[in-house]
Amino acid sequence: MTGRLIGVGVGPGDPGLLTLNAIAALAEADVVAHFAKAGNASNARAIAASHLKPGVKELALHYPVTTEIPRADAAYREVIAAFYDEAAASIAARLDAGRVVAVIAEGDPLFYGSYMHLHVRLAPRYQTEVVAGVTGMSGCWSSIATPIAQGDDVFTVLPATLPEFELERRLADADAAVVMKIGRNLPKVRRALDRAGRLERAIYVERGTMANAQAMKLIDKLDTPAPYFAIVLVPGWEGRP
Amino acid sequence: MTGRLIGVGVGPGDPGLLTLNAIAALAEADVVAHFAKAGNASNARAIAASHLKPGVKELALHYPVTTEIPRADAAYREVIAAFYDEAAASIAARLDAGRVVAVIAEGDPLFYGSYMHLHVRLAPRYQTEVVAGVTGMSGCWSSIATPIAQGDDVFTVLPATLPEFELERRLADADAAVVMKIGRNLPKVRRALDRAGRLERAIYVERGTMANAQAMKLIDKLDTPAPYFAIVLVPGWEGRP
Repeated sequence: MTGRLIGVGVGPGDPGLLTLNAIAALAEADVVAHFAKAGNASNARAIAASHLKPGVKELALHYPVTTEIPRADAAYREVIAAFYDEAAASIAARLDAGRVVAVIAEGDPLFYGSYMHLHVRLAPRYQTEVVAGVTGMSGCWSSIATPIAQGDDVFTVLPATLPEFELERRLADADAAVVMKIGRNLPKVRRALDRAGRLERAIYVERGTMANAQAMKLIDKLDTPAPYFAIVLVPGWEGRP
Repeated sequence: MTGRLIGVGVGPGDPGLLTLNAIAALAEADVVAHFAKAGNASNARAIAASHLKPGVKELALHYPVTTEIPRADAAYREVIAAFYDEAAASIAARLDAGRVVAVIAEGDPLFYGSYMHLHVRLAPRYQTEVVAGVTGMSGCWSSIATPIAQGDDVFTVLPATLPEFELERRLADADAAVVMKIGRNLPKVRRALDRAGRLERAIYVERGTMANAQAMKLIDKLDTPAPYFAIVLVPGWEGRP
């Protein structure tokens, strides 16, 4: 009897945005695994903390890199692939011992989450399940009560790491957009929005659904360094009924 | 003392994907309002049913149109705007009486939801709050455990109502995509995916997180009429580590 792997979305930050299925998975899990940067506590663990069973086994998975490297970089790809291989192997050892392992993930596990890299490595051999979660972007636009897209809007999610002309082209081509991974890319994102004619509508959100969230019109935000996880929202639905 | 308006996302269908905040809002609400097609029960109400307080007042908001009309159509816009105006007025009457009104919405209230049309009408005058929810698309890709986007992927949501050449262009231009409102548009979506070189990866999902969900590769799906709320997923992350 091998165990079972559950990828559990714990939502964007507010523990109140945990789902009943996520809580049930945490009640069932023998082992709770979570990703974090080396030297940092896991955000997912902080969100789910009050639902961890007392004395449950935990498995901390620490990323081997702390700065963002373009994914096309071969050395980065090799290091990160080896990290996911090792993480999958240490989870597989628990599954082979018959344990239920919950991997908790901020937001939704299959939407820009690290869990998916474990899932594709383990799903061919083990029983798996995925509990959907509220995404970080939903948490952000809800916290500031700003409708993002309606009706026949085209909605797009863009990483701020794209070249400036690509950002501009895609921002001009969508009704509604979310730009992620702002960090050092803020001046570039601002210029691209301006040339795409969308700067006026853009909203900057920092620490979305955390207690210390901050939101403002992007035109009012200074070009000081922004956190990596800050996002910019460009609401669509200009032709609303 | 006026009341308070809460837009409450109840997730994609599985009652287990309700959040703690959604349940708390339902426990607090004096009135629970929900949208439905004329003659139909509300899906949001079905999802939240077991959390409605016994005897809570309900307000059913029935759309005046049952078939999809392009949003550019002036007559449609007039009818639907009048409907939202009336719905907002009947909620305002409860808020003026000091009631807490929860408007429950499938998925996330501010992501292609009808709640937003009430919100923009009422937020200038009343205290409001929005509880984010798990989106329908998250429910779909999680139910079939299919990672949708990673890393620097560009992700886009497209209504199947777009012209065929627009669908083709945008599908070729994104790493990952979700096509919504499939219904009668299935043959068009299939042709656009084929010419965009993405048909092989596309997955058709019907009734996402309902008990009778169905998923298959789109190439295996016949061109028989699909439900309006069927979606097509085009997973990205071809260059995964």
